[in-house]
Amino acid sequence: MEMRAVNSMSYEQFVDVFGNVIEKCPLIAAAVWTDHPFSNLSALEKSIGDFIDSLPRSGKEGILRCHPDLAGRDLLRGTLSPESQGEQNRAGLTSLTPGQRSQLSELNVSYKSRFNFPFVICVRMNDRETIIQQLSSRIRNIPEQELHISIQEVKKICHLRLLDISSQVAQATKL
Amino acid sequence: MEMRAVNSMSYEQFVDVFGNVIEKCPLIAAAVWTDHPFSNLSALEKSIGDFIDSLPRSGKEGILRCHPDLAGRDLLRGTLSPESQGEQNRAGLTSLTPGQRSQLSELNVSYKSRFNFPFVICVRMNDRETIIQQLSSRIRNIPEQELHISIQEVKKICHLRLLDISSQVAQATKL
Repeated sequence: MEMRAVNSMSYEQFVDVFGNVIEKCPLIAAAVWTDHPFSNLSALEKSIGDFIDSLPRSGKEGILRCHPDLAGRDLLRGTLSPESQGEQNRAGLTSLTPGQRSQLSELNVSYKSRFNFPFVICVRMNDRETIIQQLSSRIRNIPEQELHISIQEVKKICHLRLLDISSQVAQATKL
Repeated sequence: MEMRAVNSMSYEQFVDVFGNVIEKCPLIAAAVWTDHPFSNLSALEKSIGDFIDSLPRSGKEGILRCHPDLAGRDLLRGTLSPESQGEQNRAGLTSLTPGQRSQLSELNVSYKSRFNFPFVICVRMNDRETIIQQLSSRIRNIPEQELHISIQEVKKICHLRLLDISSQVAQATKL
């Protein structure tokens, strides 16, 4: 990645570009801007990870609660973030069979009532079958373990979103 | 405030209602939901304040960087949050004289270049004259002191937004 372009961004530009690498949490991009300049993309990713790890448990739960349900309310209403919309599309969550849709919907309800946050998974590393499998399996975890796994998934989503932005920035700086 | 209505909200409802009491930081409302039920509005406000205080310095700066400039880019583009739009309107920031507008704009630039976050003030407790006065004066603070003052202002804005929501919830539960 062309880090000079990133490191020369004002905080406003930085938040415009990186504000949603953690879903609906521009606060996190805005916070890690403090650590710039970044030597490379991994250094930026590490800053984000470290910031998340520094949060109290409620803060980590808060990050998860800013995520939409998979194939849920926001997908139906068309109010997903552009990033989530693309990710849920590609994973086939917009073309579920009626059976899969009702299974996922019921599992989402049970999961949220057990953990008090939504099921978060890096859908780009899965398809609709493995997503339903994972949800059915992870719902049996203990809360501590499940919080940890979910935050790891948030970091995977962030990693792929950073790569996307990286190639966009690389293209833009070539123009 | 009718806290039963608040305490019976799902986290989704809670974030829908309280997500912007800290400007563009739904993460914070989503995090403090962990502390519910709240005995009263002050208890909710205290949870928010405690969460902010628990953040590392970069996190506090991140909160400030999620705030728009006063009479800045977002006001011109019409992309302010509804809360900020109302607050900046009432403070007279949408009807500045040309002289005031260019003075504020120049001060904003100097302030941001000194502190790396925007000037944040509870505009509802001020008018355009005192806002410009405060900005001219606070720009001379040392960064540590200015970060502290700014976070106090964030909490004042939050206090007033909570009161607004409180009266809306009270009216809605009467219906």
